[in-house]
Parts: sequence; C-alpha cells; structure tokens
Amino acid sequence: MDKTTRLISGIFNREVRAIARAITEAENRTPEASVILKNVFPHTGHALILGITGAPGSGKSTLVDRLIEIYRKQGQLVAVLAIDPTSPFTGGAILGDRIRMQAHSLDPGTYIRSMATRGHLGGLSPATVDAAYILDAARFDVIIIETVGVGQDEVDIAKTADVTLVVLVPGMGDDIQTMKAGIMEIGDLFVINKADREGVLRMEQELHALLTLTTRSDGWEPKIIKTIALQNSGLAELYENINAYTAFLERSGQRKRRHAETMNQRLIDLLQEKLLAGVLNKTLQDGDLKRYVEQIIARERDPYSVVDEILKRIGL
Amino acid sequence: MDKTTRLISGIFNREVRAIARAITEAENRTPEASVILKNVFPHTGHALILGITGAPGSGKSTLVDRLIEIYRKQGQLVAVLAIDPTSPFTGGAILGDRIRMQAHSLDPGTYIRSMATRGHLGGLSPATVDAAYILDAARFDVIIIETVGVGQDEVDIAKTADVTLVVLVPGMGDDIQTMKAGIMEIGDLFVINKADREGVLRMEQELHALLTLTTRSDGWEPKIIKTIALQNSGLAELYENINAYTAFLERSGQRKRRHAETMNQRLIDLLQEKLLAGVLNKTLQDGDLKRYVEQIIARERDPYSVVDEILKRIGL
Repeated sequence: MDKTTRLISGIFNREVRAIARAITEAENRTPEASVILKNVFPHTGHALILGITGAPGSGKSTLVDRLIEIYRKQGQLVAVLAIDPTSPFTGGAILGDRIRMQAHSLDPGTYIRSMATRGHLGGLSPATVDAAYILDAARFDVIIIETVGVGQDEVDIAKTADVTLVVLVPGMGDDIQTMKAGIMEIGDLFVINKADREGVLRMEQELHALLTLTTRSDGWEPKIIKTIALQNSGLAELYENINAYTAFLERSGQRKRRHAETMNQRLIDLLQEKLLAGVLNKTLQDGDLKRYVEQIIARERDPYSVVDEILKRIGL
Repeated sequence: MDKTTRLISGIFNREVRAIARAITEAENRTPEASVILKNVFPHTGHALILGITGAPGSGKSTLVDRLIEIYRKQGQLVAVLAIDPTSPFTGGAILGDRIRMQAHSLDPGTYIRSMATRGHLGGLSPATVDAAYILDAARFDVIIIETVGVGQDEVDIAKTADVTLVVLVPGMGDDIQTMKAGIMEIGDLFVINKADREGVLRMEQELHALLTLTTRSDGWEPKIIKTIALQNSGLAELYENINAYTAFLERSGQRKRRHAETMNQRLIDLLQEKLLAGVLNKTLQDGDLKRYVEQIIARERDPYSVVDEILKRIGL
C-alpha cells in the first residue's frame, strides 16, 4: 500500500494525522491532493455544513465553542475550519490565535483546523471546500466553517454551507443599514450576540425592519436569535433554529437545489483553477510570462492580445 | 468608420458618452470590449491611480469630494470609480447612492462612475481595471478607485493602485487590532477622518503602535493624517502626503516594480478569465456542464476527474 493509499484509508478511519496531512496537501494544491480528493469525494454528502460569519469582536468564536459542546452532547462529531484573512504581502494567516478552542483539542470527536484564505483568487480558498470534503468523508456529522468580516469569503460561504449564521453585536454604530446590506441576503439565521449590551433592542428592530424588506426566493423567513455566548445563554434556541432551518431545507426541496448550485460552482471554480495551472505549466515555456509582462509594460503589446494568442495555441 | 472605431476615438477625445459606453462594454465582457481595450491599452500608463478604502460611515466619499476639488484646482482631470459591493443574489449593486458626488457632475474635467463588484470571482471585478485603462487613455490625470469595507476588494486595490489610502474613524470600538490587521499592510497613508470625534488620540496611538510593528519591504513608513473632510480640514496635508509618497515611489524605483507586479497579475487574471470562457463556449457542448453536475451530485463521478477529462480534451 503506497503513501497516498494509506493516507486515504487514514481519512476513512478518522485518523487526525491523516486528515491534517490531507488538508495540507489540499492547501498546497499537490498532485497527491487530487488523488486523495478523487477517492474521498464519493463518500461525501452526509455532513451538515454550517457557515458562521461575523465581524471580529462579535464573539463568533465563543459561539462556535458553545455549538461544539451542544453537538458533542448529542453524540455528533464536529469539525471546525477557521478561515483567517491572509496577509496580501506575507501570504500567511494574520489572526491565527485559536487558543480559546484548545479546550476541545483533547476530544477525539472534535477536529479544529485554521486555514488561510489565499490572496490572488479572492474569496474562500478552494482548499477550504476540499478540506470540507475530506472531513465529510471522515464522517464528521457537522462541519463548521468560520469566517471573519464582510467580504467575498462570506458570499462564498453562503454558497458552500447548508446553513449560514450571521453574528452581530449591539452598538456597531448607526451604519447597520449600509454595513450589513451585503450580508442581509446571505444569512439564514441572524445571531445578536453579547445581547446584554446596550442597544440590543434597537439593533433587533433595525434588523427586523431590514429583513422585512428582503424577500427570499425560497420562502424562508430568516430568524433573529439573541445570545450571550459567554454565559451560555440563548444557545439552545439557536440550536433549535438551526434544526428548524435544516428541516425546512429538506421539506421544501431547497437542500437539493442548493446542492446542485454548489456543485455547479465547484466544478467551474476547479475548472478555472486547473486550466490556468495547465497553461502555465504546459503551454507556456519558462520565461514566456516574464517576457510578455516586459512587452506589456513597454506598451509594445497589450494583455488582451497576449491572452488571445495563448488561447489560440490550445485551440480556444 | 465603424461603431467600435468611433467609440475608441471618442475615448481619446474624452467624450463622456463614449467613455461610459466603453466601460459598460467592459462590464458586460463583450467582444467589442476586447477590441476597445486592445486599442486603448498602448495609450495608458500616465494617470495616477489612487485607491481609497474604508468602512461605510467613515466619510470616505466626502473625502473623495474634497480631493477632487484639490486636483481640479490644480487643473488636473479626475475620474472616480466607486465600487459597490454586489448582492450575491440579485447581482446588482446594493449601495449605489452617489448623490453627494453630483456636485461635480456638471464639471467636464470630472468623471464619476459607480461600478458593481461581480460575485463569482471575488475581489475587484476585472472590469474595474479595464475601466481604469479606458480613463487613463482618455487622459484623466488622477483616477480614484473607491471601495467599501475590508475584504478582497481592498487587497486587490492595493495591487492596482499607485497609492492606497485607508480611511478610519475614531470610536470604532476596541477591535482595531483584529479588524484592521488585514489593511495595515495595504495602506500607504492612513487617514483618521472625523478627527473631531472622541477617541481620536487613542486611535492615533493604537494605529501608530501597529504601524511601528509592521516593516515594509520597500522601506516606506506609512503616515497618519487627521482630517475632518466635512469642514475641509487636513486636506492640504493629505494632498502633500500623497505627493510625497508618489515622489518616493519614483525616486526609489518602487513604482516600476509595482507596475511590473500589477501587469503580471493582470495578465494572469485575464488569462484565467478567458480560458474558462473559451472552454465553456467552445470545448463543452450545450448540456455537458449540467450532465456533469448531475453525475457529481449522484456521486457517480467526482469534480476532480471531470476537470481532468476536460483538460485532456484541449491537450492540457
């Protein structure tokens, strides 16, 4: 049995080291990753993918901690992919402090992994979706994908997750209308955390007003749940609402429809990634790209004609 | 003279309608856009590209207004591309209220255009860069690209702009450390706007401390400038600092280096975009993609093997 085959059977046996290794391969976009993913993919589709997004300081991480506890008490296996914004200059993850989740690190039914978004493509790294497949094939029941901020990541998460929670805190200023416009449409459930803070009533009212204005094509009316994660308050209600939403997804046939959209997007993303890699590695010679760039800078050529020429070479 | 040729000469004559039309063609990724851009590209490279980013409510737009006034008084032609976050569901721009910039709309030396980011690729839409080329070829001296929030757009803007301003406001809460981690490295100049608000001193100190921790590879030390845009206070200092930075860019050779990086990225982005479009339109038959997705959902196939198969068809 070769190394990759051992890794794959390690994933099916839910061995932490095999899983960690496989995710690293996926992050590095290695040929091994491709072999691993082809083998694990047929065994996916069972896990509940829970997307959680919110600004830094919204207490999102404590909330995730509490959700892990709840699911673990039900006997469910939980994996967390914590997505850190990447520094555009160093390429590394810049938050990275995941100390507070170490409480779960000794529990074999919980797997927590920090992942960096990659800068150049924007949005959720393709490795995140691959990591979710690996965890799904390892038979984790719940996979939580946690992202920070309001940006492309969050839009992508809504396309990948079965349920998307948006975490807000009272006292974010008078900018909720503009600031939250982008995430109003991606949230299936809205959590007002730190609900013992001043301004909770006003925030709830504003949020409610905004939600009333938005009609979803699937007919779901997003709920607002108030929590104080640090005091374990409101978590049972949140859990029930997650279940209510997943029940709705099944009942209405929306889960199937969303799954089809997700897979369509996934296929296109992967195609785009591999096409570029293929052309850079096979069609272009060493130094081609550099020479093109020099010609473009000198305005001897333009990028549009260069790309046309490259496409012609592969018959496109 | 055909329609596209007329449009191109309209751009060189800085006709508002021709420019607006050309940008729309770029947004719609039409074949005409490709012809237009091939023709205008050789005439680019003269404008100063100024990226301005900040959270909603930071007074960024008023600041842009004031900068327009300053540049116009110097006899410079100014164009603004205001990037609105796109709704992931409707595909349309969701902020869109640009009323406050209408003061300049009667000035022929100013061109203001709202553009939406496109969801599926993430980050700054390729059309934004194309629009900047069109405006550059129309001989606008300064092109301001204004984005909202902290996300992939902002990282992309730093890769496209010559100078990136990050706009902050006092009283953003105690989260500056985490919230701003991502933008600390993209800002060449930091503007604390609404500097008559409480907390300005504390914010300046925190920002200063954070900047001290960050060492830039180019040796530039980002400056902090306090403004009250609404009262036209601090704007002269901001203008001087922009000039000081651009002088530094020229002197140190960094502008050339950054330009090379930008063009390299631009070429790769364009290649990726056109490769996907080429394969979807030419290699795949109608219904191919849908059938693949169905097979993937049924777990009869996996996306990785499907993509390998498509690549093989074009010899990659």
